[in-house]
Amino acid sequence: MPGSIDLLKEKGRRLRIHSLRATTAAGSGHPSSCLSAADLVSVIFFGEMRYDPRDPGNPENDRFILSKGHAAPLLYAAYAEAGILEESQLITLRRLDSDLEGHPTPRLPWVEVATGSLGQGLSAALGTALAARLDKLAYDTYALLGDGECAEGSVWEAAALASYYRVSNLYAVVDVNGLGQSQHTMHRFDVENFAEKFRAFGWHAVTVDGHDYSEIIDAFAKCRREGGPKPRVIVARTFKGKGVSMLENLEGWHGKPVPKQDLDAALAELSEPYGSDGFRPNPRPRPQREERAVDIDIVINRKIGESVATREAYGDALAKLVEKNDRIVALDGDTKNSTFSERLLERRPDRFFEMFIAEQNMVGVAAGMAARGMIPFVSTFAAFLTRAFDQIRMAGVSRANIKFCGSHVGVSIGEDGPSQMGLEDLAMFRPIPGSIILYPCDAVSAERLVAEAARVRAICYIRTTRPKAPVLYANDEQFPIGGSKIVRRSEEDRVTVIGAGITVHQALKAADTLASEGIRIRVIDAYSVKPVDGATILAAAKQTGGNLIVVEDHYEEGGLGDAVLNAVGNAARVLKLAVREIPRSGPPEALLEAYGISSKHIVQAVKSLL
Amino acid sequence: MPGSIDLLKEKGRRLRIHSLRATTAAGSGHPSSCLSAADLVSVIFFGEMRYDPRDPGNPENDRFILSKGHAAPLLYAAYAEAGILEESQLITLRRLDSDLEGHPTPRLPWVEVATGSLGQGLSAALGTALAARLDKLAYDTYALLGDGECAEGSVWEAAALASYYRVSNLYAVVDVNGLGQSQHTMHRFDVENFAEKFRAFGWHAVTVDGHDYSEIIDAFAKCRREGGPKPRVIVARTFKGKGVSMLENLEGWHGKPVPKQDLDAALAELSEPYGSDGFRPNPRPRPQREERAVDIDIVINRKIGESVATREAYGDALAKLVEKNDRIVALDGDTKNSTFSERLLERRPDRFFEMFIAEQNMVGVAAGMAARGMIPFVSTFAAFLTRAFDQIRMAGVSRANIKFCGSHVGVSIGEDGPSQMGLEDLAMFRPIPGSIILYPCDAVSAERLVAEAARVRAICYIRTTRPKAPVLYANDEQFPIGGSKIVRRSEEDRVTVIGAGITVHQALKAADTLASEGIRIRVIDAYSVKPVDGATILAAAKQTGGNLIVVEDHYEEGGLGDAVLNAVGNAARVLKLAVREIPRSGPPEALLEAYGISSKHIVQAVKSLL
Repeated sequence: MPGSIDLLKEKGRRLRIHSLRATTAAGSGHPSSCLSAADLVSVIFFGEMRYDPRDPGNPENDRFILSKGHAAPLLYAAYAEAGILEESQLITLRRLDSDLEGHPTPRLPWVEVATGSLGQGLSAALGTALAARLDKLAYDTYALLGDGECAEGSVWEAAALASYYRVSNLYAVVDVNGLGQSQHTMHRFDVENFAEKFRAFGWHAVTVDGHDYSEIIDAFAKCRREGGPKPRVIVARTFKGKGVSMLENLEGWHGKPVPKQDLDAALAELSEPYGSDGFRPNPRPRPQREERAVDIDIVINRKIGESVATREAYGDALAKLVEKNDRIVALDGDTKNSTFSERLLERRPDRFFEMFIAEQNMVGVAAGMAARGMIPFVSTFAAFLTRAFDQIRMAGVSRANIKFCGSHVGVSIGEDGPSQMGLEDLAMFRPIPGSIILYPCDAVSAERLVAEAARVRAICYIRTTRPKAPVLYANDEQFPIGGSKIVRRSEEDRVTVIGAGITVHQALKAADTLASEGIRIRVIDAYSVKPVDGATILAAAKQTGGNLIVVEDHYEEGGLGDAVLNAVGNAARVLKLAVREIPRSGPPEALLEAYGISSKHIVQAVKSLL
Repeated sequence: MPGSIDLLKEKGRRLRIHSLRATTAAGSGHPSSCLSAADLVSVIFFGEMRYDPRDPGNPENDRFILSKGHAAPLLYAAYAEAGILEESQLITLRRLDSDLEGHPTPRLPWVEVATGSLGQGLSAALGTALAARLDKLAYDTYALLGDGECAEGSVWEAAALASYYRVSNLYAVVDVNGLGQSQHTMHRFDVENFAEKFRAFGWHAVTVDGHDYSEIIDAFAKCRREGGPKPRVIVARTFKGKGVSMLENLEGWHGKPVPKQDLDAALAELSEPYGSDGFRPNPRPRPQREERAVDIDIVINRKIGESVATREAYGDALAKLVEKNDRIVALDGDTKNSTFSERLLERRPDRFFEMFIAEQNMVGVAAGMAARGMIPFVSTFAAFLTRAFDQIRMAGVSRANIKFCGSHVGVSIGEDGPSQMGLEDLAMFRPIPGSIILYPCDAVSAERLVAEAARVRAICYIRTTRPKAPVLYANDEQFPIGGSKIVRRSEEDRVTVIGAGITVHQALKAADTLASEGIRIRVIDAYSVKPVDGATILAAAKQTGGNLIVVEDHYEEGGLGDAVLNAVGNAARVLKLAVREIPRSGPPEALLEAYGISSKHIVQAVKSLL
């Protein structure tokens, strides 16, 4: 390995010094969490990883993910010692105008995904490791975890999948310092317990003294030699605050910087340098990579009136897109026959990843894949995407280019009942900054919107419906993000009804009923829930006496109704039809009726406004 | 054990028949998932569990949680065979007017928590098992899991906690039938692999042939004899669709009922009865239990102007409430020194449960505890409650009486940065039917609202703030749910500014600034975000020229602004100030400024309306 033990020890010393200085200057941060892992990070960055500090874009750089994101100062210190950052930047930690944030975000080119919500880094690392395989690249991925965060179930989701997929280019390092935030951890220093858990989950596990450089170096060598097809974990026994006696292995120091007046004394304990040569990176050669634009020009071939579920159209669109684009992959949580992501599996099995019933990990892996330039389409029932809200939230912080598809939305799924119904998914995705939410009502718009989602660089959420619905649109109809479609209009429209998905069809049915009674209504398909087409809606409101009805198969809070309310402000009167209580099992049509969003209810609502 | 093997086999046969008949009649459901577990459920219900079928309220009944909730027909069949339900009810499965829903909900008195979102049952079972210990009751809890759902990390969160707390009155049974929804599971029939995982997590594990009654019975006996302080798991090798050759161990049958025309042939394979006596329940005697009303009459003792964080007041209120109420417990995810739930720990350590960094399990356990009549207060950073959105969603379906506290809301936490900021938590809780959302701005209202939350029977969410704030209210001020407080008013108010939490103080500061310029504004503390005090807000809007500003430390979608928009409709012009992008690290005051919600921005917004 490049560099001697003295080099590594010297780097470790300097990593500690940087971490202490930066957090004391910031007046906040987690120096004790940095100090426990400094020796591990030194070996990883200056002994094991192969990367070109001058070239963050080299696809063959090894990847490092700081799962214990609160040790951010340690990461920044490693970047400085590698020549990636200027050492003078380190002192800007946590300042408003600094990219060295309290927890790492991809504002920094070397940070794959934002971390800081514990237990998510191993999933992201699995994602980048799988991306390496798909891209036929040789890089390894390293993830540094804390011991406390291994209580998070998402760690074990990632562990199970990594071993199932024989992801041997993945190295986890667990910093077992025995102390959590508010007290000791469950297992304290029992590194063998961690190792046994990982082994039971199919990993090759080695335990070490996390402050003994020889042991750490040997452990990596052992893993490379003996790991075989298994992912590798090094479980390291460490001390929080190691190297500074006022901190070392003492409770009460989590998240506390060394006070200014005590800093010199602390640094004095780290003042003996190790004589060594400098760090010499050992990057892999940069492969030629062609960046190709996403080709979304898919051919849609439906007949008006044909009965197709939008969830099925999602699958068809995915299959068409994967033929044209080598960055598109699909991930699904054992629902592929329901979400129809299986259509991509049938077309290109190498691009499909069965993630089993583990949605948190599925989303975290997608974030890692997106960081490596893939375009992951993640699907399951909309209700089960709530299982991964924290991962979705962090994907938002990462601005990860992930496309989500939630199927089986609303009461319209029928007899399976509320546990399977997505009724709060719009409320979940709307607050994610920069998110785009698309809710097609027919197969043509569904296919086109899946393609639009593939093209745009943003978190997208596509809502699909279980029951079949008639095709409304011509095959060459365009559906720009932020647009809408007026699907019924006349010169005598007295109310505008806005729907999306299944409620567009209910609204058209209501329009027919009302027309037979001499009442005309405008019907808008708000297929773009976010951004919502405020201009068209406001114009329609103006032309229909300020009368707007919004009807959605979603709870009343946070969905399409609120999107419209925000768009119109007080320029119109908005009547919201939505689900207002926990629904029960029953036939789909009966549930639409029971929960106030059927065509009958729309008719009544229109009449109530007139 | 009561009853012979023949009785158990006969019950198993009948459970299969009921499951097939009900799902075929419903035209939907998961009979193959029921058939793999029928023998296990027979032994559990008619061999192991002690309960009084005529008395669901007996506190000493053993508890059963169907974690693999899609096997609901099997559960209902067991209830019928136990005499809990009429057999004639079984055929009403999944009908709109039937309480036998597609997945079990507590509409049925014997169902502890709603299931159907996989991987959550073991947490609920851990909750009821812990409740037994707290209540000094002898009942055991049994949870039936599928194998596919063991990919969910939440299962391993529960497993770790159960062993850490030596919860030996907990029995998990895993139905390993090797087939998931869309394909085979990761581990297929490798029951030893499951057992090793559970053992690594500290459980006593036994593997069995899940269709061999003697083995199953012996396994339970073995667990009772040898389990010691460990939780117990029986890992059973089974076949999906066992007993019916057209289904047995065949892919493609998940979630598919036997078609009507094939039912008779299927039932014919199950037609040979086992001669046996009837089932004789063996309940424990019913203990005397006093139901005491919740006493929320806490004494608050603050000084106006005193600087206290609402998160600290939360802790103080909890400590006061726990002294008066033996049903109140607190659960926290290794943040108790930040959320201040540690104040309850200090007062009554037996009522505090450290749940470590595993929020999904924390919420699931709370649901189980709530089912047993406890009043759990669950706290962590608001951002990390998103980790448990699916569990919160299912708690909503269960109508579980859980109180949530999310601390460190908004950008006002400062330098830790966006991974730690709760910015979408109001959007998460608002859609939960029946939820109550409270957002106190000072220590007095915080304490009083914690008490109000304890009194009401509903999911409550309390938002608390990291920085200190001055006490505004007198100690005896009342804060009814659904109310608000006008904290600044005059006869010349030209705009109403509505805030909550930290933005109330920013609004008051803005009011002072504007007053010095001769402009008067009304300031409302909307401490009840849901239900929001529409009447007061509308009245104020009327009196201030229809000018409303809402300012919140939350993203713009789904929070207080949307609550107000819904309350006023088009009766007022609403200007929303909120966070509109991913924030960065920085000092709290600088972030309020940078993200548009400081007093300066409120002043500007007021002027823009005039």
